[in-house]
Amino acid sequence: MRLCRFDTDRVGVLRGDNVVDVTSVLDSIPATRWPIDPGDLLIANIDRLRGMIEQTALSGIPRHLADCALKSPVANPSKILGALKNYHQPADDADYPVSTLERDGLFLKATSSIVGPSEGIELTLPGRQHEHEVELAVVIGSWCRNVSRERAMDHVMGYTVALDMTVKGTEERSMRKSADGHTVLGPWLITRDEIADPATLGLWLQVNRQARQRGNTRNLLNDVPRLIEYASSFFTLYPGDIILTGTPPGAGPVVAGDVIDAGIVGIGSMRVEVR
Amino acid sequence: MRLCRFDTDRVGVLRGDNVVDVTSVLDSIPATRWPIDPGDLLIANIDRLRGMIEQTALSGIPRHLADCALKSPVANPSKILGALKNYHQPADDADYPVSTLERDGLFLKATSSIVGPSEGIELTLPGRQHEHEVELAVVIGSWCRNVSRERAMDHVMGYTVALDMTVKGTEERSMRKSADGHTVLGPWLITRDEIADPATLGLWLQVNRQARQRGNTRNLLNDVPRLIEYASSFFTLYPGDIILTGTPPGAGPVVAGDVIDAGIVGIGSMRVEVR
Repeated sequence: MRLCRFDTDRVGVLRGDNVVDVTSVLDSIPATRWPIDPGDLLIANIDRLRGMIEQTALSGIPRHLADCALKSPVANPSKILGALKNYHQPADDADYPVSTLERDGLFLKATSSIVGPSEGIELTLPGRQHEHEVELAVVIGSWCRNVSRERAMDHVMGYTVALDMTVKGTEERSMRKSADGHTVLGPWLITRDEIADPATLGLWLQVNRQARQRGNTRNLLNDVPRLIEYASSFFTLYPGDIILTGTPPGAGPVVAGDVIDAGIVGIGSMRVEVR
Repeated sequence: MRLCRFDTDRVGVLRGDNVVDVTSVLDSIPATRWPIDPGDLLIANIDRLRGMIEQTALSGIPRHLADCALKSPVANPSKILGALKNYHQPADDADYPVSTLERDGLFLKATSSIVGPSEGIELTLPGRQHEHEVELAVVIGSWCRNVSRERAMDHVMGYTVALDMTVKGTEERSMRKSADGHTVLGPWLITRDEIADPATLGLWLQVNRQARQRGNTRNLLNDVPRLIEYASSFFTLYPGDIILTGTPPGAGPVVAGDVIDAGIVGIGSMRVEVR
């Protein structure tokens, strides 16, 4: 199932190039009050809602994707974790410094940095260099802590494409990664069952239709189960939490007016304008 | 007003050494649904609720503080920001490396790391060194972005005492600061109107009744308005967001079995057990 969020908090299911509105299923998620449990309520309830979503989608009126303003498919992650350079270094690219998970750990990104593809990226820090990084984003489906590699995939709800935008400079990485608009998630969430193997996914990014990044998750140094195992040894993970798995070689600058196209084969692609 | 959260999500007002339960006022905060607006609903509504809280407190039955299990007074911050070493270096302590806000920025802590004083700190990473840092925590009261130094205090709801616990090591700071239990907030929130000047607050920390840290916010390199101005130039701030203002000299190790007492004069103090 491919699930998107569009316009003003509508929820849709993808059918080819069309979106079928299934927002009415949200009525069966109970309202909540202070204090709010951490995590995304739609994702926390997705197993229960899935049948209802599929039923609703059967009778809905399809609308063309081009007429839908896509927002981040995950609305309320409690946190975003990112892996540092997590791809095998290509033989011909000494500029891609390889990281070690156990030495460098993961970094945090502020949830306030999230936008959807239709919102674009506003460069709010004048005079600073901003770089694009395309990544496979893993969406956690259920509470976990100290989960083993073997059980890690049980806690994956699905995947989405991420642009992990970065401000270059000397400040803490968790800050440079977290300026408003610096995490683009989209175009939709694809549920885990539709991805036979997250370790064989091709990903790519273009700026103004020029190829900039190309990679495949088979070259991840730490694969998805390992990243979850490791993250959950430090942090409790909640439904909707996002793990950005790192970017392949080719990260580079963008400026206002650029148009980024980015995608993952088998998941989808998105166009994001920089302003 | 001093507002605490205790037992199972009760809200209380402090009256000397007693707590008066005002949980019933929460009924006037509307229930909410997916997607949840970022921020803490109690803090977002505090101006509207304040009269009601004070009225309710008049007729409530006081309960002794010692009989209340204090939780984090902020339940749902969307993010926690921390300043690096942000106190003037003492002439006799070369081990306290001074930071520059503009060079080093702020770091993020995961909201999943928050506990209240009654919950204590569980050291979940065997073999690692954990350090205590006592800090003044600023609680943001209202949405802001690109706020000026002059208007920054308008967005402060209040203050609390924080233990910014840190795992020593080579990993990203945002990770080492974010292990579960590594942000203690308490003992309560004090509203801004009760603190004449956040730049004259004495703060202290003891481990097993031995003095370890002592400082005064008059020695902050970047004061509260500046930290808000700077943070809001990168990130949108939401009600309940926390800014940890940095720790004075004396940060040091704790081990399981230690008892930390920490406080800020004019706000309050808390006892936190390490296990």
